[in-house]
Amino acid sequence: MRRLRMGMIGGGPGSFIGPIHRIAAEMDREIELVAGVFSSDAARSREGGESYRIDPARAYANLDAMFAGEKAREDGIDFVAIVTPNHNHLPAARAALAAGVPVISDKPATATLAEAKELADCVAKAGVPYGLTHTYTGYPLVREARARVAAGALGKIRKIVVEYPQGWLAGAAEGKQAEWRTDSARSGPGGCIGDIGTHAFQLAEFISGLKVTEILADLAAVVPGRPVDDDCTVLLRFENGARGVLLASQIEVGEMNGLRIRLYGEKGGLLWRQEVPNTLTIHSIDGRTEIVHAGGNQLGADAVSRTRTPTGHPEGYLEAFANIYRDFAATLRGESAPLLPGITDAMRGMTFVDTAVSASRDRAGWVPLLV
Amino acid sequence: MRRLRMGMIGGGPGSFIGPIHRIAAEMDREIELVAGVFSSDAARSREGGESYRIDPARAYANLDAMFAGEKAREDGIDFVAIVTPNHNHLPAARAALAAGVPVISDKPATATLAEAKELADCVAKAGVPYGLTHTYTGYPLVREARARVAAGALGKIRKIVVEYPQGWLAGAAEGKQAEWRTDSARSGPGGCIGDIGTHAFQLAEFISGLKVTEILADLAAVVPGRPVDDDCTVLLRFENGARGVLLASQIEVGEMNGLRIRLYGEKGGLLWRQEVPNTLTIHSIDGRTEIVHAGGNQLGADAVSRTRTPTGHPEGYLEAFANIYRDFAATLRGESAPLLPGITDAMRGMTFVDTAVSASRDRAGWVPLLV
Amino acid sequence: MRRLRMGMIGGGPGSFIGPIHRIAAEMDREIELVAGVFSSDAARSREGGESYRIDPARAYANLDAMFAGEKAREDGIDFVAIVTPNHNHLPAARAALAAGVPVISDKPATATLAEAKELADCVAKAGVPYGLTHTYTGYPLVREARARVAAGALGKIRKIVVEYPQGWLAGAAEGKQAEWRTDSARSGPGGCIGDIGTHAFQLAEFISGLKVTEILADLAAVVPGRPVDDDCTVLLRFENGARGVLLASQIEVGEMNGLRIRLYGEKGGLLWRQEVPNTLTIHSIDGRTEIVHAGGNQLGADAVSRTRTPTGHPEGYLEAFANIYRDFAATLRGESAPLLPGITDAMRGMTFVDTAVSASRDRAGWVPLLV
Amino acid sequence: MRRLRMGMIGGGPGSFIGPIHRIAAEMDREIELVAGVFSSDAARSREGGESYRIDPARAYANLDAMFAGEKAREDGIDFVAIVTPNHNHLPAARAALAAGVPVISDKPATATLAEAKELADCVAKAGVPYGLTHTYTGYPLVREARARVAAGALGKIRKIVVEYPQGWLAGAAEGKQAEWRTDSARSGPGGCIGDIGTHAFQLAEFISGLKVTEILADLAAVVPGRPVDDDCTVLLRFENGARGVLLASQIEVGEMNGLRIRLYGEKGGLLWRQEVPNTLTIHSIDGRTEIVHAGGNQLGADAVSRTRTPTGHPEGYLEAFANIYRDFAATLRGESAPLLPGITDAMRGMTFVDTAVSASRDRAGWVPLLV
Repeated sequence: MRRLRMGMIGGGPGSFIGPIHRIAAEMDREIELVAGVFSSDAARSREGGESYRIDPARAYANLDAMFAGEKAREDGIDFVAIVTPNHNHLPAARAALAAGVPVISDKPATATLAEAKELADCVAKAGVPYGLTHTYTGYPLVREARARVAAGALGKIRKIVVEYPQGWLAGAAEGKQAEWRTDSARSGPGGCIGDIGTHAFQLAEFISGLKVTEILADLAAVVPGRPVDDDCTVLLRFENGARGVLLASQIEVGEMNGLRIRLYGEKGGLLWRQEVPNTLTIHSIDGRTEIVHAGGNQLGADAVSRTRTPTGHPEGYLEAFANIYRDFAATLRGESAPLLPGITDAMRGMTFVDTAVSASRDRAGWVPLLV
Repeated sequence: MRRLRMGMIGGGPGSFIGPIHRIAAEMDREIELVAGVFSSDAARSREGGESYRIDPARAYANLDAMFAGEKAREDGIDFVAIVTPNHNHLPAARAALAAGVPVISDKPATATLAEAKELADCVAKAGVPYGLTHTYTGYPLVREARARVAAGALGKIRKIVVEYPQGWLAGAAEGKQAEWRTDSARSGPGGCIGDIGTHAFQLAEFISGLKVTEILADLAAVVPGRPVDDDCTVLLRFENGARGVLLASQIEVGEMNGLRIRLYGEKGGLLWRQEVPNTLTIHSIDGRTEIVHAGGNQLGADAVSRTRTPTGHPEGYLEAFANIYRDFAATLRGESAPLLPGITDAMRGMTFVDTAVSASRDRAGWVPLLV
Repeated sequence: MRRLRMGMIGGGPGSFIGPIHRIAAEMDREIELVAGVFSSDAARSREGGESYRIDPARAYANLDAMFAGEKAREDGIDFVAIVTPNHNHLPAARAALAAGVPVISDKPATATLAEAKELADCVAKAGVPYGLTHTYTGYPLVREARARVAAGALGKIRKIVVEYPQGWLAGAAEGKQAEWRTDSARSGPGGCIGDIGTHAFQLAEFISGLKVTEILADLAAVVPGRPVDDDCTVLLRFENGARGVLLASQIEVGEMNGLRIRLYGEKGGLLWRQEVPNTLTIHSIDGRTEIVHAGGNQLGADAVSRTRTPTGHPEGYLEAFANIYRDFAATLRGESAPLLPGITDAMRGMTFVDTAVSASRDRAGWVPLLV
Repeated sequence: MRRLRMGMIGGGPGSFIGPIHRIAAEMDREIELVAGVFSSDAARSREGGESYRIDPARAYANLDAMFAGEKAREDGIDFVAIVTPNHNHLPAARAALAAGVPVISDKPATATLAEAKELADCVAKAGVPYGLTHTYTGYPLVREARARVAAGALGKIRKIVVEYPQGWLAGAAEGKQAEWRTDSARSGPGGCIGDIGTHAFQLAEFISGLKVTEILADLAAVVPGRPVDDDCTVLLRFENGARGVLLASQIEVGEMNGLRIRLYGEKGGLLWRQEVPNTLTIHSIDGRTEIVHAGGNQLGADAVSRTRTPTGHPEGYLEAFANIYRDFAATLRGESAPLLPGITDAMRGMTFVDTAVSASRDRAGWVPLLV
């Protein structure tokens, strides 16, 4: 069974996320990077190709050249990974889908909700797989958490607290990563809420298996002069009546990438933290606290199959990311990968951003989340 | 210099907080328990006196008897500690103050805001000290946190997240402690918000040195049939424009007494957790993280003077509580104890409870906190 | 039931441990400090008495005066607490026992093994209680650990690792506490091994219920010119064949009071750390890890009865110390307190120190521990 | 610059470490796996080749076939990775070196010291690079620790405690991994001491920059009937007089892969734990404790260049392993990679194992480590 061939869009010199997608995609030898448009600038695209050590002829100057060039090859690409800033997600995906090429895309799916709707149409028309890299759902213990909740370990869920604190934008937005994320023309109307709030939102729905139906949003641009939000508080109501709180911030000095989630039900509680991802804490109402270890022998099939090392040998962000690519590869091969985030998550996430931004601006109080 | 003599009101058989007040009051040999009305039932009051090993003649049947009896003695009480359920706080304090006896009271100050106003009048008229046992402000590292914030270590404060998760009321409210706390006739209109939300509110103001000016409250009675709130989310605005989030819950299964607070400013961040109270984490915007240890040699005078053991010898809740009593004793002796919580905290806390309850009920959105 | 009356020997101005004994003794209102010889200097003894707020007439100039004075009173002392440097333990205990007064003593029991033997004779002759304040055995979760091991939770014990790292003597020995501890005339031939190694040794035997039968000791004076050991490695064999390692050091910079112990058996493992004393970690051979919380509802009777606060309200060193005094008070009242460390622990501890010092000096390899 | 081509020896069906070497080698796109003798059984070798998705023609039946076949290709292998059980390390390395093919090998280098000497001769004669995968030295914060110690952050080193607790062999040795590791014919005379003790030994020398000159070893086969050691205590002396303790065990129930190290000098202390590898704790003698974060901006060049993700995005065991391969690739390309473990570490490690086993068997006390 041959490796699937990946083309990359974006990820050129200075990119943070491009090399990470490459490592994640290739980790399990299911996929190899063979081509790309690594930059909209032809010279920089070539430079990008060199950095990945691919055939220079396959470091293309633009999307059309890539889709045409690859179509003409026997060993052409099987799919593209989109790793550009947000505003380029839709154009790239549209071109790929028009060419009948499956897409896996960094999040958020698009810069705006209108774009997301167009994307959904394109995906529907193309009839090829679309994946969205909500990386954190790839962690084995996140899968385990979801499985335990689904199996009723916590009883009916009553309360979810999901937090995503960061501090790297507490000062002026300097450097490529900071600049486009704080520029609404490139990031879309949501700043922090789109960049990391969507991860938190998706994680809460993913683990709980519950949909958010109403929100109350309070977004702020704390750093003076910042054109997008950098600190977000959102109250949530889930479809079963459970209450939730979502906190996301990029101005909390000293916080690194502190995504964490707590779920509480009638019978138990559960805690997971991205920065120490290899343990899961489970409380039961009788007062017991259990620590579940990645790679340990209390885990269900989904977690086990997504673990590469024995217990005590830490896996991290790259391995979680690789699990998303593994599910995407399975989808391309026609196998079942029911937990792969896709166009539904894309629409839910962009609706969440759009609703939060407008409701906060209008001080609208509780509003429904209409996806 | 003789020990101050304490009378206790409440704290009889089955009391959780009475014996804790006694230990805290006596820890530094500044104070000794000598008398009390330990129950409104005379027999139970006697039984309470025996459990504390005090002179049986000084275990009184009612408040009048105690104030009269003690006044008649040369070695009569110097003050009373009120440790009853909330609805008895005002009657007890009123009687003491009317007798010219200083009061230290468990929190919240009263059951209702109207009672708090009456209390404030009584205190003003009596002209004797009144202290409120916001225990957590007694921790040496909370004092240190306050001192560092005041000294500008974090720069201008921008964001405060204070959480008080508990899980012990996730099921039916059984037992003396649970029963009165979930009975609005005894606890007041606030359940969780009064019982622990007030601690979180006061701690945020204490450490930051900032007053809350506006709130948006969302309180719920999650357990079916519960007459008071047991899960609270409150958004805060501070006088300097800083944003805050206050979470308090008594239905988060597995949480014990997880009060914790994070403050973020322009230059740094700070984290303290009640359950591991002997470390304080300080982040600076240059990326450094420092762990400050109780008893260590980076501490300021206020923290040092409230520490009894060398670093690495954990102090806990009782020692923090004792620090409140030490400050109260200092006040009685005419010394300065500027950080002792008192009638101002009482009024702010009850206004917070009252405002949160009514604003949440009315879905009022942001409302001012008018103390 | 009246409070027991305590006289203190040592604990005068500048003492670290005197005030701690006082707090611990009085915490449960079983005991009160009423008299003492707080210093061998009469003026300093008076000063000590004032600091404890006791009757000035009962701050004696010497032991004879105290024992005579107190014997003459109706409300004379019931026992003495010895809190001097090591070399004064025997003289103080001898005098008390000769006067028929029960003794509770700080550890190590004496400065030398020869003295310990004399002490044991005195105790035997006097026929009154003798207690030794191995404080750490007072922690509720240490009691729980012992109970679980005794109940077979770990199966047959195979391996014990006990560590006691400190760093406060990494530099020159300055200040009263450091000076006498590094002076063999006052501390005895053992430095670190006597000061904290004895705690570690006693804790390993206490929790495991097993006696050490052989040791291999490697002690060093790491700081140049130090006349006693400050860094100790001791290999242990227990009576059932289990292997052990005891590490104690006072030159490990940054370590505070890091006593910790791990026990492993055929069926499970267990970990406890003094600096975070309110959790106990239990591993079972099926891969499960459980966190047991102080005050939680999985605890046995011995732990429960020695806990003063609900779960999540941290207790610490002073409360553990108070549990030792509670057991001593029970012994004085004729009640059963089988876990109170006493003259047997004294003899075992001093034999351990003496054997370790001589075996290390002689590079003797494995030697029996002959108590 | 093309990718280097790797042949693998071992790593066939059921192998734990083969797939891990493959992921590590390929992570940075410096290297690709193209060939192998994945098993000494031809059919199983083919099966192994399929699992790695390599050209079936390059899944060879034996070493001779591989070296001949690859030599005949223009795109033949550049080096081999040896991932067999210990007793096959020497034969595989000997064959590769005889063919002039560079070698990277799993540790320990060989099964016996005699074999290691022969290996060293082969390496010397072949004049091609030899690398040894002491994976843990690949962690960025281990590099940082080494750099800080070298820069004098701790002052003169006085004490090192290195521990490697595991529990997976506490019961009967079942399964492929357990079986060969407890069979002296395949693992060599050292069991635990060779399997993980060598890692601990090498890590202590790596971070401290100091050589061990003397040891006192106490090894045991705790599980009845086990032919090799499974629990090891070794006292160390370093060339500068510093004292050390090395603990390694495979019978400590509940321990996973708990490699950890603490170094103490005249001015500071340092702690690193493999299971939470992204933080490093640094104590200074003035009482300060700093937490250094992987990816943070206090790190030196060596750590920074070996980090793939921003701070807060955990990297783990596979990324550390990849750093070893990155250094090996650099060596093959003629670049400097001074921290790559090689034949010197091989000889030191096997001398350590051999000396520990014989000294423990003979109860020899302190013995020199003569490499």
